[in-house]
Amino acid sequence: MRIDIISAVPSLLEGPFSHSILKRAQDKGLAEIVVHDLREFAINKHGQIDDYAYGAGAGMVLMVEPIDKCIQKLKSEREYAEIIYMTPDGDTFNQRTANQLSLGGDLMILCGHYKGIDHRIRETHITKEISIGDFVLSGGELGAAVVADAVIRLIPGVLNDETSALSDSFQDDLLAPPVYSRPAEYNGMKVPDILMSGHDAKIEEWRFEQSLERTKTLRPDLYKKFTKSHQK
Amino acid sequence: MRIDIISAVPSLLEGPFSHSILKRAQDKGLAEIVVHDLREFAINKHGQIDDYAYGAGAGMVLMVEPIDKCIQKLKSEREYAEIIYMTPDGDTFNQRTANQLSLGGDLMILCGHYKGIDHRIRETHITKEISIGDFVLSGGELGAAVVADAVIRLIPGVLNDETSALSDSFQDDLLAPPVYSRPAEYNGMKVPDILMSGHDAKIEEWRFEQSLERTKTLRPDLYKKFTKSHQK
Repeated sequence: MRIDIISAVPSLLEGPFSHSILKRAQDKGLAEIVVHDLREFAINKHGQIDDYAYGAGAGMVLMVEPIDKCIQKLKSEREYAEIIYMTPDGDTFNQRTANQLSLGGDLMILCGHYKGIDHRIRETHITKEISIGDFVLSGGELGAAVVADAVIRLIPGVLNDETSALSDSFQDDLLAPPVYSRPAEYNGMKVPDILMSGHDAKIEEWRFEQSLERTKTLRPDLYKKFTKSHQK
Repeated sequence: MRIDIISAVPSLLEGPFSHSILKRAQDKGLAEIVVHDLREFAINKHGQIDDYAYGAGAGMVLMVEPIDKCIQKLKSEREYAEIIYMTPDGDTFNQRTANQLSLGGDLMILCGHYKGIDHRIRETHITKEISIGDFVLSGGELGAAVVADAVIRLIPGVLNDETSALSDSFQDDLLAPPVYSRPAEYNGMKVPDILMSGHDAKIEEWRFEQSLERTKTLRPDLYKKFTKSHQK
């Protein structure tokens, strides 16, 4: 899978893709992330890509022309399963969307910055608008990194058994159980006895009960979804 | 405000804080972000900070000792308003939480990695558990960057008038209206006439109507909250 990310501040995306799991996914040839600097499509030699918003709103807007040219160029080079715009008023991102996107084809992700992008781009090029949550960030870059990370780690082969996505939260609408590692006792705090028992079936049962209990307490909304889907 | 971030993969946090608004906030002395490498508190000279989970779960867990030592050290140096752990089963982050955190004191944010952290840390040191959404990421680093960005941009003086947070989505439970910039016509696509009218009051009215309309259509849940709070 290839993910093209268009950004007005590409340097914000330096860290997230050059280390850890996303780096390994790229090294293994399972994913390719290409960040495009919107300024390469500036409307003049001063590198202009933003301008004042028409009307009374405060703030700068990323202009229609540079974005249109950048998207047109990428579209002419390959097909995209989705052209995504990261925006607080998009559909809230969740594990289901991550699963869907990981099974589709290549993705293009456009990051807004300042007050957003000229609305005409949203009406013509964008096929999917995604928000990572009900909060406002300086730009779409962190959101794009979140989507790329969540999607790429689901591609078969990216994670090894030890980091397997199957026991993650949300894959089955349940939160993960508590985890513990060595030492068994630290400053008087002990690991639950059951986990040291070596009795695999009982441990599995305990973990499942903990998952249920934590979901019921912390996320009654998810718990409802879980019980509903298991009544069928 | 100072934000200390503890991470097993600090290089993931290279980009987000060294550019754009977060960089300016730090240059102006309004915010300070310090990233701590958990490996400096490793339990042995091999730099070990993680180990297998007790029991049947797949995956590695960040050990109790290195995290405890790192948090103890930071706590001995200053007071923290909150010690936050980024985890998918935490409280869902939103603009309200961002507002609250921006008004409190210094923050410590602990990033999980692999399958998470030894649960004993959560029971002793953590005062607040935050999730940025119902999806799973490779680690807490992107979440920590999201929280830091959302919080810091709300500190008075960080944003100038042109990027003012007051007209952002969610500050009043409404989505932002569409924005447009030059040119007024591009490839046959025109900016709405009203925005070119110069009639400030009418433009404000249009923008407010658009906000209402978009919120009603795209986020009926938010719209309900908005109408409720405006009936009081």
